[in-house]
Amino acid sequence: MTITIIPVRGIPEVREGDELAHLIADAAAAEGTPLADGDCVVVTQKVVSKVEGRVVALEADDPAARRTLVESESRRVLRRRGELLITETAHGWVCANAGIDLSNVEHGHAALLPIDADRSARHVRDALRARAGVETAVVISDTFGRAWRTGLADVAIGVSGLAAVVDLRGQRDTLGRELQVTEVAVADEVAGAAELVMGKATGVPAAIVRGLDPAWFREATARELVRTPSEDLFR
Amino acid sequence: MTITIIPVRGIPEVREGDELAHLIADAAAAEGTPLADGDCVVVTQKVVSKVEGRVVALEADDPAARRTLVESESRRVLRRRGELLITETAHGWVCANAGIDLSNVEHGHAALLPIDADRSARHVRDALRARAGVETAVVISDTFGRAWRTGLADVAIGVSGLAAVVDLRGQRDTLGRELQVTEVAVADEVAGAAELVMGKATGVPAAIVRGLDPAWFREATARELVRTPSEDLFR
Repeated sequence: MTITIIPVRGIPEVREGDELAHLIADAAAAEGTPLADGDCVVVTQKVVSKVEGRVVALEADDPAARRTLVESESRRVLRRRGELLITETAHGWVCANAGIDLSNVEHGHAALLPIDADRSARHVRDALRARAGVETAVVISDTFGRAWRTGLADVAIGVSGLAAVVDLRGQRDTLGRELQVTEVAVADEVAGAAELVMGKATGVPAAIVRGLDPAWFREATARELVRTPSEDLFR
Repeated sequence: MTITIIPVRGIPEVREGDELAHLIADAAAAEGTPLADGDCVVVTQKVVSKVEGRVVALEADDPAARRTLVESESRRVLRRRGELLITETAHGWVCANAGIDLSNVEHGHAALLPIDADRSARHVRDALRARAGVETAVVISDTFGRAWRTGLADVAIGVSGLAAVVDLRGQRDTLGRELQVTEVAVADEVAGAAELVMGKATGVPAAIVRGLDPAWFREATARELVRTPSEDLFR
């Protein structure tokens, strides 16, 4: 029941059209930590967006252009403060500036969120199976702010082969009482755990999370992590 | 740079006045995974509240009494829906029902949040040093809901010896640009990672997170994770 989180180092700067799964599987093998069945591979949104060509021209010092881009990537603006917009993306994610981001992207450019990160995750998973012969789960992670709490944390925006949310309904606590906490956002906790070895400045865009509960490996989508606006008391 | 998350099994049901650090250090040793310098020990709020006597009489089927208790543990009610109250506690945490919880507590009782979980963390850390001769960090974790996203995730409500938030300001990305993401809620990610081996029904109230970046080990408080209401666009 011990979990190990292994950074995948040595992945080169990626370009549009690269097959991420090959880069990850090969780098992990070269590092002496080859992928194994039952691993969950966490990949940052940034490299997924790059290989999928979700990079657009944007001058960092042009706030009007940036605002226009953020709005075009959003379904709804929830809050504005100065240059910061908290918006709801087409996927339903609530985050700063529609998840558009300038770090680790070439100057004069910005990375947009993948169009469908669940599909991205499925693609990486299938390609890992083909390349390395392993049955893994895949989580696409991104770094979001939160209401009420300072700091940012990595969460899941795409999953394949791993429960996004684990429902404990019907289970009982150690004293035999039915659990009050019923839904655990496992994929978000996995994304956050992976961030601990990836850092922001160190060029490690993927990590292996090894030893997760086998019961969590099932078909799922990260869309399950979107709280629908009608059930959300804070949007 | 690999991180390992080790559940601490074999901790008996705790009572008021128990020295948690002794139970944790002894159980970890008995399991063959003794604590080591540089470990971060994550302990769930529930057992901290129990040893600190933060358990009160409450009938689960008395919603009026529960509401009164929640309000007495809150500084402000943010939202109400049916029996659910989202409140701001005296500490500044925004969570459901002021963090009061009936699972894994004797019938007819409820566990309140520790009065000062940073102090609780410091106490456990000092007692671990005394018991096992190890220099560790300690995180007290609790399970909170989130705005916008379904499911619950463990976060830090107390820390000692570990940065709650790591500030990357001034660091540069792999392309030499100054990072936009500057504050990472490391203690929350550590708490969520630990949850992956603790479960909710399995009676594992502590975990060892081994291999965290040594640069993160410093004096800090979980209060740094409270976004002050004036800076919070969502309360």
